[in-house]
Amino acid sequence: MSFNTFGHMFRVTTFGESHGVAIGCVVDGCPPLIPLTEADIQGDLDRRRPGQSRFTTQRQEADQVKILSGVMAHPQSGAQVTTGTPIALMIENTDQRSKDYSDIKDKYRPGHADFTYEAKYGIRDYRGGGRSSARETASRVAAGAVARKVIPGVTVRAALVQMGPHKIDRGNWDWAEIGNNPFFCPDKDKAAFFADYLDDIRKEGSSIGAVIEVVAEGVPAGLGAPIYGKLDSDIAAALMSINAVKGVEIGDGFATAELTGEQNADEMRASNQGPLFLSNHAGGILGGISTGQPIVARFAVKPTSSILTPRKTIDRSGTDTEILTKGRHDPCVGIRAVPVAEAMIACVLADHWLRHRGQVG
Amino acid sequence: MSFNTFGHMFRVTTFGESHGVAIGCVVDGCPPLIPLTEADIQGDLDRRRPGQSRFTTQRQEADQVKILSGVMAHPQSGAQVTTGTPIALMIENTDQRSKDYSDIKDKYRPGHADFTYEAKYGIRDYRGGGRSSARETASRVAAGAVARKVIPGVTVRAALVQMGPHKIDRGNWDWAEIGNNPFFCPDKDKAAFFADYLDDIRKEGSSIGAVIEVVAEGVPAGLGAPIYGKLDSDIAAALMSINAVKGVEIGDGFATAELTGEQNADEMRASNQGPLFLSNHAGGILGGISTGQPIVARFAVKPTSSILTPRKTIDRSGTDTEILTKGRHDPCVGIRAVPVAEAMIACVLADHWLRHRGQVG
Amino acid sequence: MSFNTFGHMFRVTTFGESHGVAIGCVVDGCPPLIPLTEADIQGDLDRRRPGQSRFTTQRQEADQVKILSGVMAHPQSGAQVTTGTPIALMIENTDQRSKDYSDIKDKYRPGHADFTYEAKYGIRDYRGGGRSSARETASRVAAGAVARKVIPGVTVRAALVQMGPHKIDRGNWDWAEIGNNPFFCPDKDKAAFFADYLDDIRKEGSSIGAVIEVVAEGVPAGLGAPIYGKLDSDIAAALMSINAVKGVEIGDGFATAELTGEQNADEMRASNQGPLFLSNHAGGILGGISTGQPIVARFAVKPTSSILTPRKTIDRSGTDTEILTKGRHDPCVGIRAVPVAEAMIACVLADHWLRHRGQVG
Amino acid sequence: MSFNTFGHMFRVTTFGESHGVAIGCVVDGCPPLIPLTEADIQGDLDRRRPGQSRFTTQRQEADQVKILSGVMAHPQSGAQVTTGTPIALMIENTDQRSKDYSDIKDKYRPGHADFTYEAKYGIRDYRGGGRSSARETASRVAAGAVARKVIPGVTVRAALVQMGPHKIDRGNWDWAEIGNNPFFCPDKDKAAFFADYLDDIRKEGSSIGAVIEVVAEGVPAGLGAPIYGKLDSDIAAALMSINAVKGVEIGDGFATAELTGEQNADEMRASNQGPLFLSNHAGGILGGISTGQPIVARFAVKPTSSILTPRKTIDRSGTDTEILTKGRHDPCVGIRAVPVAEAMIACVLADHWLRHRGQVG
Repeated sequence: MSFNTFGHMFRVTTFGESHGVAIGCVVDGCPPLIPLTEADIQGDLDRRRPGQSRFTTQRQEADQVKILSGVMAHPQSGAQVTTGTPIALMIENTDQRSKDYSDIKDKYRPGHADFTYEAKYGIRDYRGGGRSSARETASRVAAGAVARKVIPGVTVRAALVQMGPHKIDRGNWDWAEIGNNPFFCPDKDKAAFFADYLDDIRKEGSSIGAVIEVVAEGVPAGLGAPIYGKLDSDIAAALMSINAVKGVEIGDGFATAELTGEQNADEMRASNQGPLFLSNHAGGILGGISTGQPIVARFAVKPTSSILTPRKTIDRSGTDTEILTKGRHDPCVGIRAVPVAEAMIACVLADHWLRHRGQVG
Repeated sequence: MSFNTFGHMFRVTTFGESHGVAIGCVVDGCPPLIPLTEADIQGDLDRRRPGQSRFTTQRQEADQVKILSGVMAHPQSGAQVTTGTPIALMIENTDQRSKDYSDIKDKYRPGHADFTYEAKYGIRDYRGGGRSSARETASRVAAGAVARKVIPGVTVRAALVQMGPHKIDRGNWDWAEIGNNPFFCPDKDKAAFFADYLDDIRKEGSSIGAVIEVVAEGVPAGLGAPIYGKLDSDIAAALMSINAVKGVEIGDGFATAELTGEQNADEMRASNQGPLFLSNHAGGILGGISTGQPIVARFAVKPTSSILTPRKTIDRSGTDTEILTKGRHDPCVGIRAVPVAEAMIACVLADHWLRHRGQVG
Repeated sequence: MSFNTFGHMFRVTTFGESHGVAIGCVVDGCPPLIPLTEADIQGDLDRRRPGQSRFTTQRQEADQVKILSGVMAHPQSGAQVTTGTPIALMIENTDQRSKDYSDIKDKYRPGHADFTYEAKYGIRDYRGGGRSSARETASRVAAGAVARKVIPGVTVRAALVQMGPHKIDRGNWDWAEIGNNPFFCPDKDKAAFFADYLDDIRKEGSSIGAVIEVVAEGVPAGLGAPIYGKLDSDIAAALMSINAVKGVEIGDGFATAELTGEQNADEMRASNQGPLFLSNHAGGILGGISTGQPIVARFAVKPTSSILTPRKTIDRSGTDTEILTKGRHDPCVGIRAVPVAEAMIACVLADHWLRHRGQVG
Repeated sequence: MSFNTFGHMFRVTTFGESHGVAIGCVVDGCPPLIPLTEADIQGDLDRRRPGQSRFTTQRQEADQVKILSGVMAHPQSGAQVTTGTPIALMIENTDQRSKDYSDIKDKYRPGHADFTYEAKYGIRDYRGGGRSSARETASRVAAGAVARKVIPGVTVRAALVQMGPHKIDRGNWDWAEIGNNPFFCPDKDKAAFFADYLDDIRKEGSSIGAVIEVVAEGVPAGLGAPIYGKLDSDIAAALMSINAVKGVEIGDGFATAELTGEQNADEMRASNQGPLFLSNHAGGILGGISTGQPIVARFAVKPTSSILTPRKTIDRSGTDTEILTKGRHDPCVGIRAVPVAEAMIACVLADHWLRHRGQVG
C-alpha cells in the first residue's frame, strides 16, 4: 500500500482531482452477495456534499455516484449484490467553474500543499488544489458506504465536538441532533452558538479549526493485531490522512498523560452484572485489539488555509509576494470532515474484520 | 504490510516475546554499501535499555544485538557494510526470571492487552506480556539505528516534555540536557523536579503518563505522498503503534483547532533573507509532504497498567476477582518510549526517502 | 498486492466485467512530468481490440480510453503531462448485446472459470464471463501504455511463435512482419499457413492453443532483487495472470533441463570486443536480476473453452447435462494475448525500475 | 511484498547468506493454537539437507532449526502451540569452511548471479554465493513446514520427473518410491538409471538440468482470486523464485498449445457418479481459482553453473579471463529443489486459504 491505497483485505484505491474529469475509487476485496445499490452510497455522499448551508464552500457538485463494476442482479433473487470482484465507483466533476486561477497559479498559499506538491513533483494542479482538494474525500465517503455493509451490527457515527476554543457540553450529547444542524453537532445549544460564531468568521473571510469525535459501536472484541497491525495504529493513519488533520487520539488520548495507573485502569466485572468494563478510558482498544467496548477516537482539523486576509508568501521564482484566496472556501473545513471520518473508520473496521476472519477464522 | 511489518521500501518485520528465546527484526530494502556494525546499533539499544536508573523496570537485560545477515567486509576497503540483502538482527532474552506467574496467569490486568489477546487468539503469553511487552520495542530501536544511516544529514531526537500534569518550560529547552537525566528531559530544572515526583509515584506502587516530542531536522522538502502515503499519516501510525500510546499530533496538533486561518498560516519569504518559512505551525508537513522545516510530532503515553493497588477484574472463567501486579515495572513507561519514538520516525523517514527516490528520481 | 492490484511502486489496480458499465484501471506511482495523452494509450488498445479480422471474436467494442485523472496541461509548456498522482483510465462497455444467456446461465462450461467463480463467491456473472472475460485485459493494455513511457530506451515486443503443433521458423524472424498479419506472427510464411489452418478450426467451431514470446530490449543490468522480488518471478506471475495461460518460461526455459552446465553457461568477454555475453540461455536474467541482455519470456495459451461441440457438464443443481457455446468467440485466444503480454512486461519493468531507483539510487 | 517477503496473510520473510552467522525466516500471520515444535520442522529440513548422498553438495550443515518466538506451552494442555504472533525460525551456519575464495572473488561465474548482484548493489558476497546460495532455500523449507499445518487435509508432494533428456515412465509412478532413492524419483527403474547417469556427470565435473512435478491433494474448490491474485499466478511466482528455475507450468502446461478446445475441456459429471471431473488438463485451477481437483505444477531447473570445465568470463575490471569452480557443488541442483517446491506450494496454499477465509468467510 503505498500512495493511494489503504487497507489490506478491504482495499480502497482512490483517484481524481478537483478539476479533472472525475474522481472515484476502486474497492477491492469486498465479500460477495452483499446487497449494494447506488442509492446505498448516495445517502452518505449527500451528507458530505458541500453547498448545503452557508457554512461550507458554495461549490455546487451533484456528487452523483455511479457503480462501474463489481455488482450484478442476483440470478435468483434479482436484488443487486456484490460479486466479490472489484467495485469501481465514479463521481463526475460537474462544477469545474472556468475560474481565473492566475492569482494563485504561481504563488504558494501558506499552510497549503501548493509548495510541497511542487517541491516533490515539479508540478502541481493549481486549479482547486488538485489531488489535495477536499473534493477527494468524496471518494472515501463512497468507499465507506460499502464498508459499512461489511460488518454486521456495527454503527459508526461522528460529531463535531469543538469549534475554535468552544467545546460542546458533553451532558447535552444527543446523537439525534447531528442531523438537525449544519455542523453535525450533538449539542443543540452549542450548535445554535456555532451558527453565530461561524457567521462572523465567514464574513471576515477568515477560518477556524475544529475537533471531531468518532464512535464505533457494536465492534466485537478481537479486531486488530499486535505491533504494526494495531487497530489504533490504523485508525490513527486513517484519520491523519484526512485533509487538514493535525492530531488524533484514542479514548482519553492526551489526557492519559495526566492520569495515574489507578485512574486509567478500566476495571472489569462479570458480564452477567452488566457491562464487562466499568469505564472506557482505553477507547475500546487495548494492545492494538478491540475490547468490545465502543471505539472512540478524536481528531483536530486545522483552519482552512484559503483566507481573504493577505499573507506573505513567495512565487515559483522564489520572489517575495503576498496572497489572498478569493473563492468558494469552507470557513470551518472540519465540518465536512465528519462524514469522511465515519467512512475512514468504517473502512478500517471492515478491513480488520476480514483480516481477523482470515487469520483466526 | 499487515501484522508485524512496517514500511514499504525500507521494511522492518519484528518478532519475539519477552519470555521467548530471542527478539529481533529483519530490515529489508536497506541500500547497499552503508557502513554498519553491531556497535552502531548497540549505542541506541543502550539508551533504551531498562534497569539503568530506579525510574525504569529493574529487569536486567544485556540487550546485546547480533547481526545475523546482510553485511560483509567490503572486498576492497575491508569495512563492514550492508550488501542490499535483508539485515536480520537478534537480541537474546537473558533475564527470563523463572518468576511465579500464577497470580496473573488466569486474570486480566485492567488496561493491559491480556483480555484482548485472549479474545482474539484464544491464548496469551501471560509471562511478561508476551508480544505486548515493552521489550518488543528493542527490536524497533535496532531497526531505527539502521534507518538513521539511510538518509544523509537527518537528525532525529526526542524528549520527554510532560509527566503527569507537569510540562517542561520550553524556554529552558536544551538538547544537551537529554543525556544528563534519566528522563530524556531537555529542561534541567524540570528534570530535577521529575526525580522527586516520580520517586513518590514509584514508592506508592503507582504509575503516571507522559508526553514525548520528536523532532527530525535536515529532512528535505518533498518526502511523503498524497492521501494514504502521507508522511504524517505514516508518522501517526508509527507512533500509535508504540505500546501505551493514546494520542499523536503533528506541529501545533490539537491546538490548531483553536486557531484562525491567519494564525495558522506559516508565511514564507525569499530564502536569501533567512529561513524560507516564518513559523512552523505545520510541524514540517503540508498536504502529507515534508516542507523542509523540522518535522515535529508529539504523543501521549498512558500510565503503566501494572500497579500495586488492587483493581477489580475477572478471571478466564468470567468470575469477579481482584488483581495487583507485583514485579519489575516502569513507574512511567513514557520514559523508555523516547528512543523508541526516535527509531520509529527514523524508519518512516528512511522508507519515504527510498519511496521518493523511486518515484521521482 | 492481493486480488486486483499488481506492482509495488508502479501499481496497477484493474476493475470491470465484460457486461458492466465500464472497465478500467488506476495506475498509481507513475512519475510526474511524463507526456501522456489518450492517443498514446489508444494505439496499444487498438492493437488488442477484437473484431479486426475473422480470427478474433466478432464482438465490436470501440475500446475508447478516457483519462479521468492524474494528468494536466503543463503550466509552462502546455503539453499534457503526468502529475505524479493516480492515473485513472476508463473504457466504457458499448457492445453489451442483450443476448440470451439462458443456455449457459445455469451450466458450467468445461475449462472455464464458471464453476470456480461460483464455488468461491456463490455467484458468478454468466454474461460474457464477467471478470474472467478476456475483455479485462484491455485495462492491462492501457496500463502498459503508461508503463512503456516510464523507462527510457526500453522496447517491449511480443510475437506468436506457435499455433497448435506448428512452430514458426526462427530463421524467418522479422519483427516488421508482426503488423502485417492478424496473428502478430514474425514469420511471413508461417503467417500465411496459420490463416488457412485457423480458418479450418474456426469453421469447425473448434479452438486451438498457442505460444507467445515476449522480448524486452534495452533493459539495463540490475533490475530485480533476490528471492521473492526476482524479476523472473514477477514476470512469471504477470504472464500467468493472463487468461488461459498455462505455462511460462524464461530464456531457454524447459529446454535447460536437458542442458549440461557447459552448454548452459552464457560466457562473457570484455565489452570492447562486442557484446558482453556470448549467448543468452538465461533470457537476460540471472539470480533474479537483469543482465543487460534482452529479456526473453515465452508462455503457452490454452485453447478457448467456448466451442461449438457439445461437452458433458453439470448444472448448478449438480445434474448431468451438455453444453455448447454459441456466440462470438476467439478460435485462438492466444492471438489477442500478444499485446497483453507486452503490457504486462512493460508494467513489471516499470515497477522494478522504480524499485531499483528507490533502493539503490 | 517487495524483496524478501512472500505471501499476504501467511507471510514469510527470509534472511541470510551461506556464509553469514545464520539464515532463517519470520512467519507472520500463522493462526493461533496450531501444535508446532522444532521436530515438526526438522523433518522437512532433513529431507532438503545436502551431503546425504554423493549426488548433492558435500557441504555438511546440521541445519538444526530453532524456534525463536511465536509458540508457547498451552496453559491448559501443555502442548507447544502457535500463539498468532510472528514465528521466527533460525538455522545457524556451522560449516563455513574458511576456504580460499581468491579464485572467484574477482571473477563472474557464467550463468551465476555474480555479475548481476555486483551490477545492482556494487558489491556481492563471493563466499558461497551469499544470498543467491541454494542454502537460502532451507529457510523456505522451514516456513513450509509451518504452512503444511495451516490447511487441514492437504497433502503436498513433489517428485523429480526428468533429468537431462531422460523422463520417468509415468506408468511406473509410485509415491512410495520417493523416499527410497536420493533423487526423489517416483519411478524405481529410472531412479536406478539416474544413479549411473549422474555419477558420470559428477565425475566429469559437469552438471545437468531437471524437471520437478508438485502435486497438492485435498485442496478445496474456491482458493485463489481473479486477475492478480490468481492461485496459478502465485504458484508461478513461488516456483520461479527458487534458484535456477527457468520454467513453470500448470496442468498440461505448454502441451495445451497443441490441444483443441475439445481435447482440453475437463468435462464434468454429477458427483454421485464418481469424481466431479473426467480429466484434469487444467491442473486443478480454472480462472485462477482451485477446482477441488489435485493441483499439478511442473518446473524446470537449469544445470548448476559451478562446473569444473573452464569457461570464458571477465573479472571485475572487465578484463577477459577464464573460470572453473572447484568445491562442493551439486551435479543436479534440481534434486534439492524437490522439498523446496513442496514448501513453496504449501506456503502459497496456506496464504490463499487465509485470504479466502477472510474475504468469503
